[in-house]
Amino acid sequence: MDLLRLIAPRRRAHAHCDIPCGVYDPAQARIEAESCYRIIERYHASSDEVFRNRCIVVKEERAELTKHHIDVMWHDYFKPEHLEQFPDLHDVCWKASKQASAVKQSVDLEAAKKLLELIDRIDDMWKGTGGPGKTRLPA
Amino acid sequence: MDLLRLIAPRRRAHAHCDIPCGVYDPAQARIEAESCYRIIERYHASSDEVFRNRCIVVKEERAELTKHHIDVMWHDYFKPEHLEQFPDLHDVCWKASKQASAVKQSVDLEAAKKLLELIDRIDDMWKGTGGPGKTRLPA
Amino acid sequence: MDLLRLIAPRRRAHAHCDIPCGVYDPAQARIEAESCYRIIERYHASSDEVFRNRCIVVKEERAELTKHHIDVMWHDYFKPEHLEQFPDLHDVCWKASKQASAVKQSVDLEAAKKLLELIDRIDDMWKGTGGPGKTRLPA
Amino acid sequence: MDLLRLIAPRRRAHAHCDIPCGVYDPAQARIEAESCYRIIERYHASSDEVFRNRCIVVKEERAELTKHHIDVMWHDYFKPEHLEQFPDLHDVCWKASKQASAVKQSVDLEAAKKLLELIDRIDDMWKGTGGPGKTRLPA
Amino acid sequence: MDLLRLIAPRRRAHAHCDIPCGVYDPAQARIEAESCYRIIERYHASSDEVFRNRCIVVKEERAELTKHHIDVMWHDYFKPEHLEQFPDLHDVCWKASKQASAVKQSVDLEAAKKLLELIDRIDDMWKGTGGPGKTRLPA
Amino acid sequence: MDLLRLIAPRRRAHAHCDIPCGVYDPAQARIEAESCYRIIERYHASSDEVFRNRCIVVKEERAELTKHHIDVMWHDYFKPEHLEQFPDLHDVCWKASKQASAVKQSVDLEAAKKLLELIDRIDDMWKGTGGPGKTRLPA
Repeated sequence: MDLLRLIAPRRRAHAHCDIPCGVYDPAQARIEAESCYRIIERYHASSDEVFRNRCIVVKEERAELTKHHIDVMWHDYFKPEHLEQFPDLHDVCWKASKQASAVKQSVDLEAAKKLLELIDRIDDMWKGTGGPGKTRLPA
Repeated sequence: MDLLRLIAPRRRAHAHCDIPCGVYDPAQARIEAESCYRIIERYHASSDEVFRNRCIVVKEERAELTKHHIDVMWHDYFKPEHLEQFPDLHDVCWKASKQASAVKQSVDLEAAKKLLELIDRIDDMWKGTGGPGKTRLPA
Repeated sequence: MDLLRLIAPRRRAHAHCDIPCGVYDPAQARIEAESCYRIIERYHASSDEVFRNRCIVVKEERAELTKHHIDVMWHDYFKPEHLEQFPDLHDVCWKASKQASAVKQSVDLEAAKKLLELIDRIDDMWKGTGGPGKTRLPA
Repeated sequence: MDLLRLIAPRRRAHAHCDIPCGVYDPAQARIEAESCYRIIERYHASSDEVFRNRCIVVKEERAELTKHHIDVMWHDYFKPEHLEQFPDLHDVCWKASKQASAVKQSVDLEAAKKLLELIDRIDDMWKGTGGPGKTRLPA
Repeated sequence: MDLLRLIAPRRRAHAHCDIPCGVYDPAQARIEAESCYRIIERYHASSDEVFRNRCIVVKEERAELTKHHIDVMWHDYFKPEHLEQFPDLHDVCWKASKQASAVKQSVDLEAAKKLLELIDRIDDMWKGTGGPGKTRLPA
Repeated sequence: MDLLRLIAPRRRAHAHCDIPCGVYDPAQARIEAESCYRIIERYHASSDEVFRNRCIVVKEERAELTKHHIDVMWHDYFKPEHLEQFPDLHDVCWKASKQASAVKQSVDLEAAKKLLELIDRIDDMWKGTGGPGKTRLPA
């Protein structure tokens, strides 16, 4: 952890973010989207009405959390210089948000799979802009 | 993703969890705890009163989220057979929750570091019980 | 209320808690769990589909609040010396949390009854550790 | 608990509430208001700036929860026949809500004490309308 | 915006509210109640079970937000002098809150229409007490 | 209201949104941003430390709600055809979100004024795409 102390100040000087913490990780969006995927799978595997109703309730919440975490990446993590590097940044994030809405609205496993793929594209842009090194603490 | 469809049902049959999604990852707790760490760092690096007040406000929220995610691991992910495997499971989770309270209550960077270490012990137990393979979707 | 002023400082000096308020009462968990009980009762008494769907939605929230209040007792109220006095403290709280999950997952009135009984065991430990006198204000 | 099953249907038939659960208790408001009282006490007993800032943050939340629970009593529990019985019902609830705002706005212990007294008047009306027997489950 | 600077201090001096912001608008309640209206409309226009379940889930949330915004008008915006001017103030707000509960409890479009009408009566009282000029910023 | 019934189905057929309610209004973002403006004004007009701390706490929440409502306009209301009509749609929404972060981070009244101006640009795009007629109910 001594190493961390040495690295931390330098990192903060480089930080592209203007909020207090500077910690970001698209894993937050992905974990919630994986929940949506599993819930849809289980919805189809069950014929119990109460269970199916609960799937609809809980998927609605999980997809809303997914949207929130996508929004955080879009408006808090990404900066103008990232947009220059990835001109489709707005488009990918917009589609990912809209896809999370689609996952709320259906019980189609393909919709959840497509959401995961769009989050993975946000993850690529996060990695391509040095995200893991800059926005997470070393273990 | 065809592979996923093949794997998914088998995994569900093995699943030790009884809630709908079955997706867990201590990364959710760790990311929030890293935020606390960074906020404390920045608190000490600043002499601006408004900024310091905001650090207190935001740290309170982030530590509360950390506690929530630790709770989820404790009462939703871990099962009786995991307790047999890791007899100090209750003790580690309890200490981690109490440490998150300690991080709310102070601006001591060591408190945040200790919280990260306790979350890493939960992470070890999650890994030791097959967590990554059983509770996350393959990329 | 003059009496309160006299008592309060002494109590605070004795306080086993390290957070600001020091006020705890398992009644918070019990009230939410009673809601779950009543909702399940009414679910079975009705054949209206909209009403039954609403029961599932609202029970999900109430059981989640129950879990939150159980968590607060477990990690905020109870201290190491309480664990010495009640060696099954972790076990009872863990079972109560898991039972609240069970109440989310079913419309079985026995599940809700068992949840109430587990909360009453937490209540017994709270009383056995001086909870009412130490953590509530005199009326 | 067999007794409960016998009583429950009759009680439900008598129920004056139109929402699913029918469980109410002003203790929910009182517990949060007691937190506000204790936080103000501890604020004055401390000279630590971080602790004092945290008191402001947490009191804001606890007073908001107090208001919410007062609102629930006012618009969910109390019915037109209760208003006939207690013509100052609106006035007491209004003053209690406004007093919870006052508790947010100050660190005056008398403000918190007055809030507790107003909640106790709501509690009296709840008791006077048969609340404990009608809206809580027997232990 | 220069004009705003000139007007703002005078307005603040006149402000009847004691909380920090002094901004109120029943439009917040109305927008959520309109959502409830549309959701009920779409519920009846669909025969898709998943869609209908989602309507129940989302309407529950929207009606709860409507209640919250009605509460804010009642206990935060309206002051004793407004009650003198509008002696049915408590009655209208109470009925509006209870009507929002009724909108949660049914899929009756007339219930949602009646809620909108009650919110419009709150809006009239807000306008009749100078609300738009006193509690919103000029565009 | 009979007229409404006639209009509603046609409107729904035209609806560009895919979620249940179809009700949107940038007034939701503007009202919260006006709160931020007023809070900053009052912060500077006061020298009371507790009041100033509360301003920081409450502004943080209000700016977060502003961001949420901006996000809703961006990913829920606006559709691909709107982007063709307003090619700077992404840019304006992104700047508005980032400006809401700036309002969290400072007590600069100009920052809050700039946020209001950016929300007004979103309002212009909402109006320019038929928002008021398509997404609100006629009074």
